[in-house]
Amino acid sequence: MSFAKTLLALSLSFALAPAALADTGLDAGDIAVAEGLRDRAMAGSQAWSVVESLTTEVGPRLAGTPADARAVAWAKAKFTAMGFDKVYLEPVTFPVWLRHREAAEVVSPFPQRLVVTALGGSVGTGDKPLEAEVVEFSDLAALINAPEGSLAGKIAYVSNRMVRFKDGRGYGPAVGARSNGAVEAAKKGALAIVIRSIGTSSDRFAHTGTMRYLPEVPRIPAAALSNPDADLLSHMVARGQPVRLRLDISAETIGDYTSHNVIGEITGRELPGEVVTLGGHLDSWDLGTGAIDDGAGVAITAAAGALIGELERAPRRTVRVIAYANEEQGLYGGKAYAEARAAAGQVPAHQLGAESDFGAGRVYALRAGVDAAAWPVIAAIGEVLAPLGIATETEGGSPGPDVGPIVAKGAPWAQLAQDGTDYFDYHHTANDTLDKIDPKALDQQVAAYAALMYLAAETEVDFGSAPAPKQP
Amino acid sequence: MSFAKTLLALSLSFALAPAALADTGLDAGDIAVAEGLRDRAMAGSQAWSVVESLTTEVGPRLAGTPADARAVAWAKAKFTAMGFDKVYLEPVTFPVWLRHREAAEVVSPFPQRLVVTALGGSVGTGDKPLEAEVVEFSDLAALINAPEGSLAGKIAYVSNRMVRFKDGRGYGPAVGARSNGAVEAAKKGALAIVIRSIGTSSDRFAHTGTMRYLPEVPRIPAAALSNPDADLLSHMVARGQPVRLRLDISAETIGDYTSHNVIGEITGRELPGEVVTLGGHLDSWDLGTGAIDDGAGVAITAAAGALIGELERAPRRTVRVIAYANEEQGLYGGKAYAEARAAAGQVPAHQLGAESDFGAGRVYALRAGVDAAAWPVIAAIGEVLAPLGIATETEGGSPGPDVGPIVAKGAPWAQLAQDGTDYFDYHHTANDTLDKIDPKALDQQVAAYAALMYLAAETEVDFGSAPAPKQP
Repeated sequence: MSFAKTLLALSLSFALAPAALADTGLDAGDIAVAEGLRDRAMAGSQAWSVVESLTTEVGPRLAGTPADARAVAWAKAKFTAMGFDKVYLEPVTFPVWLRHREAAEVVSPFPQRLVVTALGGSVGTGDKPLEAEVVEFSDLAALINAPEGSLAGKIAYVSNRMVRFKDGRGYGPAVGARSNGAVEAAKKGALAIVIRSIGTSSDRFAHTGTMRYLPEVPRIPAAALSNPDADLLSHMVARGQPVRLRLDISAETIGDYTSHNVIGEITGRELPGEVVTLGGHLDSWDLGTGAIDDGAGVAITAAAGALIGELERAPRRTVRVIAYANEEQGLYGGKAYAEARAAAGQVPAHQLGAESDFGAGRVYALRAGVDAAAWPVIAAIGEVLAPLGIATETEGGSPGPDVGPIVAKGAPWAQLAQDGTDYFDYHHTANDTLDKIDPKALDQQVAAYAALMYLAAETEVDFGSAPAPKQP
Repeated sequence: MSFAKTLLALSLSFALAPAALADTGLDAGDIAVAEGLRDRAMAGSQAWSVVESLTTEVGPRLAGTPADARAVAWAKAKFTAMGFDKVYLEPVTFPVWLRHREAAEVVSPFPQRLVVTALGGSVGTGDKPLEAEVVEFSDLAALINAPEGSLAGKIAYVSNRMVRFKDGRGYGPAVGARSNGAVEAAKKGALAIVIRSIGTSSDRFAHTGTMRYLPEVPRIPAAALSNPDADLLSHMVARGQPVRLRLDISAETIGDYTSHNVIGEITGRELPGEVVTLGGHLDSWDLGTGAIDDGAGVAITAAAGALIGELERAPRRTVRVIAYANEEQGLYGGKAYAEARAAAGQVPAHQLGAESDFGAGRVYALRAGVDAAAWPVIAAIGEVLAPLGIATETEGGSPGPDVGPIVAKGAPWAQLAQDGTDYFDYHHTANDTLDKIDPKALDQQVAAYAALMYLAAETEVDFGSAPAPKQP
């Protein structure tokens, strides 16, 4: 932006706007437009019908499966129907993991079937079930501290329980058992590992999610028990007799597949080369219909973008909605997006990125990672969001997983933090279905994203943080 | 009871008790004993540990399977360990139904797997899956009103939703789709029927339960979809394109099996031939661990009976705890018990029968079906229960399913009505597990059953209603 233009914008701003809009590049008219978007969304947005369409017409869409391709076709058609100026695909390539069969049962002393699911990326048990005695560990640290070789011929069982918090901060301390448990158990000689699901519900659903192997450590099968089944297994182990578990998993990682990020744009009226991005991930795990993870995020952000697109006058900057490919198995869509932008020198064009990938609960906080000079804009946006019950927080927060890679390259971000109190009840389970979504909560989120992204696209203030010089 | 003895009892009662105990055959000391039982139970009963033991050491115990035999052995050993004077088995014979495999998926236009479970008693789809177009009906009445032959080559789908009530009264209007749907669909030529689960939760569990065939109507497979899957199927059907469903069920009814009612007694000190009975059913469906249906009932009533057995002085009448066999598939245990008593002329010996088979929620009402002359006893019992939050209701109520058959032969009954608000969330699903039980709620029920049954066994008042003359 030229110096003269900046001066003009500032003088207009001073002329039209109250003192609260100083240094925002926004005037009272802009605020009124944002408030109008907010209020239209609150009166009823498209979001629920979009996620209803995705979960009904596509349903589960594990990356690399035929349903992934159906989801990409769905998103392209849906974005087009929603009125985006441009809709296009960008390739994202990744290895494909497939779940074929999973079962577990206690063989002795108390024969019972257990509800289990293979972790994403796990190998299978081979042509036949694996049967061995269970050794329970209270958490991953206890497993790591087990003597070398002490699990030879055994199945490790890590039983720590994730704790529920509004902001989901119980996930981090718990998820290591899922991510690293197989490696740590294999180091001690275990034949397999089962963990208590990383989830907060006591419903009998096992929670899947990614795990990883290391090249130098044997690859052993890894699976999660539902919380009630973990309770059951712990109750059996507590009786002191050897508990033998039979695990039957068929899963495999096959060759690479190329899916796509699906992108819809509302072209900026003055600065089309500068973009604000919002989005969610299009893929889901295979167990549920991917309603809250992350059909909701795709629907909310697409509905917010489309609402901005319905304005008579587009904002100055381009508004870009991104439905990311394969977030679940390694943020492939977000990484591919960031790498493509870096290769094209387009990272500095990214003025603000935000992502909805924490379920369908209401937004309660606005946070941002922007230059100090841009905080007046964030504060002004916060005032528009305040009637939605959203507080502006000047510390903390983080970009979403798929925005992370471009943020790592220097792009600024905003976060609309959602109430995730029940998010991990459903996360990565068969129970992630449409009925878990409150349509009114979706409307509140559309209202927040539409107002946020409209104002971020309308201002000429630089949100900053890009490491490379801005292109003129 | 002789007239002289009655006079003696009455005069003692008048001498020792306040006016409220007139005509109850009870004195203040009896009330104090009942209050002591109540308060000891509230301080912590055995019930949770009993149901923990059953669900952990036996788990699912479908009638006629090896787990049924393990459950009978468990109950015999547990009752013995709990100190009952007599523990014995009585045979119960029934046909055995087995579930082998069940799966459903929409083939077109929107391929997705659906969560489904075969209804108890259903035939399978044969050696291979059955595939046909779905025809949706809003309820069983709509199916019954369909034109003859209109379902030829189709799968009927009945989508009515059970309504949640504290007393479970939503079950009756909804359950016909499960019980009679297959017959009605087959009459119209359907190849199979799927129904929305008879249950109130929106969690993705299908609810099983019995269905029946008629000799003159073709036997077609019958299955229930979870509530979210029923929503999904309805959303697909609403789009107006033909929806094709593939149903793959393997199930069979095999020859007869003899299981057992397991009975534990505290022998009456004066009138051992007169009995009060309490109990639950020992069998469960195969999907969950049968914690609330009806491990809780077995545990509550066994704990209450054992608590009475710990008294220094047993009550006058015998207290009999019955763990009924195969309630789920036709009240076989309750019927066998009643028929054996009728054949032996022992129905009149039954002074009061009660059953806990409505989950693990707290008791909120005492109801009874007794002679008018016995209502003062019920009222006195009600006063002991009132501090537990239990109201005495002089109208309504019903005996439980397994007490029903002996009540039909003239035995009097009492009901401790439980809060069943969430009972049908878990009922007949894989999610019927131990964690759904609040140990404190079990204690409240043990307190209520112990006080009720102690006083019913201590009084000599005749609860009446028996059709045959009382034996002296």
